[in-house]
Amino acid sequence: MTRLWNEPENFADEMIDGFARANGRWVRKVAGGVTRSTRSEEPTVSLVIGGGSGHYPAFGGLVGHGLAHGAAMGNLFASPSAQQVESVARASDQGKGILLSYGQYAGDVLHFTEAQDKLRAEGIDCRTVTVTDDIFSAPASEKERRRGIAGDLTVFKVAGAAAAAGYDIDGVERAAILANDRTRSMGVAFTGCTLPGAEEPLFSVPEGRMAIGLGIHGEPGIDEVDIPTADGLAELFVERLLVDAEIPEGVSVSGSRVVPILNGLGSVKNEELYIVFARVAELLEQAGVEIVDPQVGEFCTSFDMAGVSLTLLWLDDELETLWSAPADTPAFRTGSVDTASLVQRGDIDDSVAEEVIPEASEDSRRAAAAVVKALEAVEKVINENADELGRIDSIAGDGDHGIGMKRGSHAGAEAARVTFSKDAGAQSVLTSAADAWSNKGGGTSGAIWGVILRTIGERLGNTAPVNPTGVAEGLDAAKQAVMDFGKAKVGDKTMVDSLVPFAETLVERVNAGDGLVDAWAAASSASQKAADGTADMMPGMGRARSHGEKALGVADPGALSLSMIAAAVLEVLREASDH
Amino acid sequence: MTRLWNEPENFADEMIDGFARANGRWVRKVAGGVTRSTRSEEPTVSLVIGGGSGHYPAFGGLVGHGLAHGAAMGNLFASPSAQQVESVARASDQGKGILLSYGQYAGDVLHFTEAQDKLRAEGIDCRTVTVTDDIFSAPASEKERRRGIAGDLTVFKVAGAAAAAGYDIDGVERAAILANDRTRSMGVAFTGCTLPGAEEPLFSVPEGRMAIGLGIHGEPGIDEVDIPTADGLAELFVERLLVDAEIPEGVSVSGSRVVPILNGLGSVKNEELYIVFARVAELLEQAGVEIVDPQVGEFCTSFDMAGVSLTLLWLDDELETLWSAPADTPAFRTGSVDTASLVQRGDIDDSVAEEVIPEASEDSRRAAAAVVKALEAVEKVINENADELGRIDSIAGDGDHGIGMKRGSHAGAEAARVTFSKDAGAQSVLTSAADAWSNKGGGTSGAIWGVILRTIGERLGNTAPVNPTGVAEGLDAAKQAVMDFGKAKVGDKTMVDSLVPFAETLVERVNAGDGLVDAWAAASSASQKAADGTADMMPGMGRARSHGEKALGVADPGALSLSMIAAAVLEVLREASDH
Repeated sequence: MTRLWNEPENFADEMIDGFARANGRWVRKVAGGVTRSTRSEEPTVSLVIGGGSGHYPAFGGLVGHGLAHGAAMGNLFASPSAQQVESVARASDQGKGILLSYGQYAGDVLHFTEAQDKLRAEGIDCRTVTVTDDIFSAPASEKERRRGIAGDLTVFKVAGAAAAAGYDIDGVERAAILANDRTRSMGVAFTGCTLPGAEEPLFSVPEGRMAIGLGIHGEPGIDEVDIPTADGLAELFVERLLVDAEIPEGVSVSGSRVVPILNGLGSVKNEELYIVFARVAELLEQAGVEIVDPQVGEFCTSFDMAGVSLTLLWLDDELETLWSAPADTPAFRTGSVDTASLVQRGDIDDSVAEEVIPEASEDSRRAAAAVVKALEAVEKVINENADELGRIDSIAGDGDHGIGMKRGSHAGAEAARVTFSKDAGAQSVLTSAADAWSNKGGGTSGAIWGVILRTIGERLGNTAPVNPTGVAEGLDAAKQAVMDFGKAKVGDKTMVDSLVPFAETLVERVNAGDGLVDAWAAASSASQKAADGTADMMPGMGRARSHGEKALGVADPGALSLSMIAAAVLEVLREASDH
Repeated sequence: MTRLWNEPENFADEMIDGFARANGRWVRKVAGGVTRSTRSEEPTVSLVIGGGSGHYPAFGGLVGHGLAHGAAMGNLFASPSAQQVESVARASDQGKGILLSYGQYAGDVLHFTEAQDKLRAEGIDCRTVTVTDDIFSAPASEKERRRGIAGDLTVFKVAGAAAAAGYDIDGVERAAILANDRTRSMGVAFTGCTLPGAEEPLFSVPEGRMAIGLGIHGEPGIDEVDIPTADGLAELFVERLLVDAEIPEGVSVSGSRVVPILNGLGSVKNEELYIVFARVAELLEQAGVEIVDPQVGEFCTSFDMAGVSLTLLWLDDELETLWSAPADTPAFRTGSVDTASLVQRGDIDDSVAEEVIPEASEDSRRAAAAVVKALEAVEKVINENADELGRIDSIAGDGDHGIGMKRGSHAGAEAARVTFSKDAGAQSVLTSAADAWSNKGGGTSGAIWGVILRTIGERLGNTAPVNPTGVAEGLDAAKQAVMDFGKAKVGDKTMVDSLVPFAETLVERVNAGDGLVDAWAAASSASQKAADGTADMMPGMGRARSHGEKALGVADPGALSLSMIAAAVLEVLREASDH
């Protein structure tokens, strides 16, 4: 939802103020919107775009060299008035004619047309090309009735480049019409946006559902389905946009060249868009389409609406030249200074040397089998407790402990299995698990568990007999390595607080003659007790207040997961000794 | 929340795939992250950045000419592993030394340091500068303990520019340290983000509240307050960042030059950021700070977290040169091709001619007074019903009808009062209200109400006596003008459906000899009936389905508001006739 404003009535005006202040290099404020703050060497046709506010970077963010000359910026989701359009057009006029271009909506058509009539009455050669790219707003046979969404960008970019290239008004109009004819978009939405000062969202989509074809102001879509996977959404997009009726006249899909624009409507973020894009690119390539200069990001938004659209611009030679021409605006910059040359793939060697597995004794193979079982038990216990560990971590830390441990323990167990299957001994299995855990788990916990497993492996080796003393010494060495690595000591309320009593108790009991199971049980309960103890005096700095939750009394998640792991491994040891 | 993925475990990997696919012009994928796909003419120091994923454009989006050479991209909110860092550093190395730079978090420090140790062991001159800009993560006296947030960008940009300028490793390291010493940030948050596959948000902030100092992974902040206005937030930011302890050594605030970076964390959108920025700029200027190349947008996010941060980079001559140097990356491009020259303010005349109020007869002045009263009644009734009108419009249309009518009727009444106070007659008052309504209301409804008021005014004039026949003729002419303007006819389920019976009944009854009040009452009830009739057969195309609400049976909001307005004006007429 929208949260930051002063008075809802002044939202658009104040937004334009701030926008112009922040982007004085490209734009200056005039009555009704913005116009360029720069001037071309030679006068050209002027491209004036516009529409309601709330769609940034549409429309002001697209004013600058190689793109629009001015943008009429209306109120929130409301067309600019005829006076606003007229004012911006006058401020942008260079005496070579004006092209008005905007997404096709009733209010915009009324106001822009009124402004056009006034300008024409004074002898200014003013033309209009509306953008009609939304395939779900009317049937393909009636493209002229469709609404404009993120396809705005392709029409504006092509028209702006044509103007910069010195096309006359007939030529700029023709190029814009061509771009619009060859642009198709479709959008989906998961939630609506709330306008500043409004009590309720403009519209809503049921939780877990996705509206297909829903417009950028919440105009009704054509269907509603469960939210698909990222791949599933990519498949839906490409399937719908590659139906015969949506292929522009004279274009054959295979062998064509297309600019795909994957647009986030507001709160679907770049990370998610990139996952969808990977599959979109694959599918287009499978269909024989060559991808040119893809765009992934926010080009036409609807405040913080959770939605995505895919636009395809089907190029011909002229459109490709115009699309690729330099542009420099607050929100769209391309063809900028870069004298560097592309590295050819293969210039750099990415291959990893094939690993060699050292030979192992039979005794070490048996220990390696136990290590695999133990790591599988660890994976299981972490998997069961990952959400809780994450929740605890989110109170005092960054909340990634659960998910990091889950990824790490999964990768560790998997690597151990694979390495074990290659006749490896205990050290090889532990080392491969250590590398995988550290690499896939990431974060502090990944690094530390990498150190622990690697150090134990070094002590056990691949040929020596494995006995309780060796295991206890391995844990003791691991304890020391962790303390050296993380520079933490007992009392810092980290996992060291539970690792130290664990290792010390284990050594003590083994030295006193206990078997491994009994010693491990004692060590495990010492670590459990110590982990609970980390809850007593969490450092403060207002931690609780900003989360509305009590931070004192919460144990360190690293210490907790260590004690969980110790207990899980104890079960494996018990089972092994029972057989 | 995050909605689009395939398997949560593969989120980061697939994201990097898509990112590299979409941005092949700048980057190529290597084990552990990305490196540039371009090569400089001369080898330089290599800048390798990195961190967890979920902060786009940090970190991969900042790889390219003039900025980073490679980015190690960890899992979601988790440090990349030492292997990942090492792999990316090797792929980015040009034999002139490597600077590792990243936000200071425990996990990142562990892994990057381990990678640095390995690279150094092979004789590679590898250095590290961590970013520590978050003023709320530790006291000013312990800046070295602070976390890194959006200030990452200033350190990376300065170091990358220094490398591109041919600085040696000592020089690049020195410039990065200088940039970090002179960078301060603070952030606030309104909601947390939900990691892909997680059941719950990583943290939450109570509705209507704002956490101050909360970190980009939800690390605890220092305070929690009610959400302020946009201006209030700007004041908080500037006040906290301009305290003595946060002014870098040797800098005097007045006369200083600063790059402000107003960063959205995910779902606070550009429109809101620009409103905040307008006030930030004012406050900095009041403090005597000169603003250089301001940045407003997303530079370091936390998925779709609703939050904002402000970063200040306090320039000296060297930092200004390095900050302003060209850069060309997927997400940050500056200094690009633009041969156009800045227009000086004042080159274009923005002034509006002073309006001349025509003289008015006493009779027309009385009518003008009634018009003002009627417009005030209209403003009132619309104000009371704006939310409901918006709700109705959101079912079938774009939901802006309520807010547009509210703005328009408010502006119309205000303009009418002002013009009336200048001794204006009925036509002048109606014309000024028409212009204001159309201009401020925007959208289709603004245009149509402009036409209605203007047309009635033309019929009434400023000097002729005002009688029921004139009013009825005015309404009839307005009806015709609206139909011509919007190309709508009765039965299209627009406001024309209620305007036509209104005007026809009014004419009929006045011609039959009724007084204005009785005729208006009959017309008003005819329009009410017709407005209700627009609910019977809304056009379909699946409208209801995608909103989970029943669309059939919903009246046209324009027809509804016309009938409300007719009823409100009737009250004014009745009151006037009672006196």
